[in-house]
Amino acid sequence: MKPIKTRLLTPGPTMVPERVLQAMAAHTLYHRSPEFKAIFSETIERLKRFFHTERDTLILTASGTGAMESAVANLFAPGDSAVVVVGGKFGKRWKELCESYDVRPITIEVEWGKAVKPQEIKKALEENPDAKGVLVQICETSTGVYNDVKAIGEITSNYEDVILVADGITAFGVYDIPVDDWKIDVAITGSQKALMTPPGLAIISLNEKAKKRLERKRNTYYFDLAKEIKNQARGQTAYTPAVNLIVGLNEALKMIEEEKLENVAKRHQILATCAREGIKAIGLEILSEVPANGVTAVKVPEHIDGQKLVAWIREKFGIVIAGGQEHLKGKIFRLSHMGYVDIFDLLTELEAVEFALTRMGYRIEYGTSVKAAMDTFIKAVHKRPV
Amino acid sequence: MKPIKTRLLTPGPTMVPERVLQAMAAHTLYHRSPEFKAIFSETIERLKRFFHTERDTLILTASGTGAMESAVANLFAPGDSAVVVVGGKFGKRWKELCESYDVRPITIEVEWGKAVKPQEIKKALEENPDAKGVLVQICETSTGVYNDVKAIGEITSNYEDVILVADGITAFGVYDIPVDDWKIDVAITGSQKALMTPPGLAIISLNEKAKKRLERKRNTYYFDLAKEIKNQARGQTAYTPAVNLIVGLNEALKMIEEEKLENVAKRHQILATCAREGIKAIGLEILSEVPANGVTAVKVPEHIDGQKLVAWIREKFGIVIAGGQEHLKGKIFRLSHMGYVDIFDLLTELEAVEFALTRMGYRIEYGTSVKAAMDTFIKAVHKRPV
Repeated sequence: MKPIKTRLLTPGPTMVPERVLQAMAAHTLYHRSPEFKAIFSETIERLKRFFHTERDTLILTASGTGAMESAVANLFAPGDSAVVVVGGKFGKRWKELCESYDVRPITIEVEWGKAVKPQEIKKALEENPDAKGVLVQICETSTGVYNDVKAIGEITSNYEDVILVADGITAFGVYDIPVDDWKIDVAITGSQKALMTPPGLAIISLNEKAKKRLERKRNTYYFDLAKEIKNQARGQTAYTPAVNLIVGLNEALKMIEEEKLENVAKRHQILATCAREGIKAIGLEILSEVPANGVTAVKVPEHIDGQKLVAWIREKFGIVIAGGQEHLKGKIFRLSHMGYVDIFDLLTELEAVEFALTRMGYRIEYGTSVKAAMDTFIKAVHKRPV
Repeated sequence: MKPIKTRLLTPGPTMVPERVLQAMAAHTLYHRSPEFKAIFSETIERLKRFFHTERDTLILTASGTGAMESAVANLFAPGDSAVVVVGGKFGKRWKELCESYDVRPITIEVEWGKAVKPQEIKKALEENPDAKGVLVQICETSTGVYNDVKAIGEITSNYEDVILVADGITAFGVYDIPVDDWKIDVAITGSQKALMTPPGLAIISLNEKAKKRLERKRNTYYFDLAKEIKNQARGQTAYTPAVNLIVGLNEALKMIEEEKLENVAKRHQILATCAREGIKAIGLEILSEVPANGVTAVKVPEHIDGQKLVAWIREKFGIVIAGGQEHLKGKIFRLSHMGYVDIFDLLTELEAVEFALTRMGYRIEYGTSVKAAMDTFIKAVHKRPV
């Protein structure tokens, strides 16, 4: 039997609500028209509420990596050094970006699956008084690890010359994070994760401490943040933006406001707990010591090829989950419960995994993970409304 | 009376066909799935046919400026020099990009509205034997000028160490340009012009002469062309691309293939001629000495404020045409006839201009430009099928 439906359940891109797709399907607006400027400014205001901030918040037409590059290129000078947490593929990307811009990375290597200890960051900053920043992932998507960025902010805020740059591409909207209170100087996210919009937009929000660094001239043009700040304050962008995606993002943010961000975050927390309980019930192990609420990385039982498992689920059932990256290829699979996802989507993922494991020789009773997830869900919902 | 419809007739973004909007409204695909890889590779193959080439042709998630930056950042080294044609806002962008990357611009200043003489480029290359490239617009969108890039290619191809980088953002698809035959080493375009897709994608196609330069290490990451060449050959992108926009672009390219690119180019040529004849019939002057086929820049009669004219047409009739940029602000308006545009769209633009001019005290008989455009159209169509 060929699958007749596709279900996108990767940790990005994620499922896009019909409302957002429909909004994007409206005719393209002229990016310099009053009509678009109004929508653009409205979207920026919604993003500021989403981050609980009044600071400059910018939309770039690029993938999240573009916003990461803009932070490194605009906020650090050649010869600067920065503490970089490398505990997965995206931590490695921070390091590579630093190297591209002649910023010396002071690397804290963290075993893939573990979270960075805030004390290690403090130690690195003490040992490297010249360090100009800390670059970290709030959620390291490749391992499903949550880093305690709030505790890190408490540390970095004590250093006058250190900015905390947090890649929250799979964290903002999964968690309700007030960037000012948490002392995140530079917050980054992307459209295609908890923001429920197709890929193509990156968001960067930066406070005065970070903005002070914008005066230096750097080898960057498209990602020139000073120029964007000037333009976006007037409802404009320096270059033609992805108009239709922005209209979609505005609609998605409207949905988040309707559900209320705190409820969105609770939903993610409950679904993540259900995922973990479901997985444990069938005897599998979660990779992450501190699992994040947007994605659950699961170790594949020995003798089973994780890449085959993921491919089989996709080909047989049209359910698209992610495998492992780099040295974790074949060793893990990743269940996403990020964005436009409810309990039944999660149960579907668990069911597909049960089918696949059984097929590949790992013996379980069908429904075991589902029962555990449902039990967990109903208990959580009874305690607090979803 | 408030307008009940909006008609997007700017030189970018341009109107997007319903077929493309519908294609984009399909659920987002996982960018690493076989399904998306197949669509991506198909889109790349269509783009190669569009450029009449087999060379590497890449899609970047960015506005056209991103592709321009990628060319400067990847193909020139700090300290290099390059001949830059500056005859409008986008020529200035080339110059600024060079300066951002420590490439010395050898500027050929061209009066806004005039085309560069290929002989001037030859002279500049002779006088600057160290020059490593020529950066030019095929159509300078801010003035509606067409530069004879074919003649320029005949010159640059004689220099072993010079590459011709052509910004054809408002030229490709307006004209049928075989990049190999015309000796354009690097061709750049964007999704939101004659490609009839919303903004957010940039395209860059480069030949072996240009690719030889990719080995140098530069301060660039998101726009690393060597990395993209490696990835895109396998139907992948280095970073999450704007999936839905690519699905839309594939559909738009399908439409261009159905109409046939040579007919698309003829349609643009005929509509451009109609626009020019219509404008002349009401006594207005075209800015460009060598007018391009995608956009017609028209001088506003004295004592009339071009910005007000454009605003009035938009507010009164919902028709969005563009005004002038920089020192041409208020001095010109620009009629677009690029992409998904037919004769009736062009006549609509002329009618709106007639209404506005009359309202602002410039006396004409209604229908004068329309008659001239219709006469021109029917003669052109009789001579050759549109």
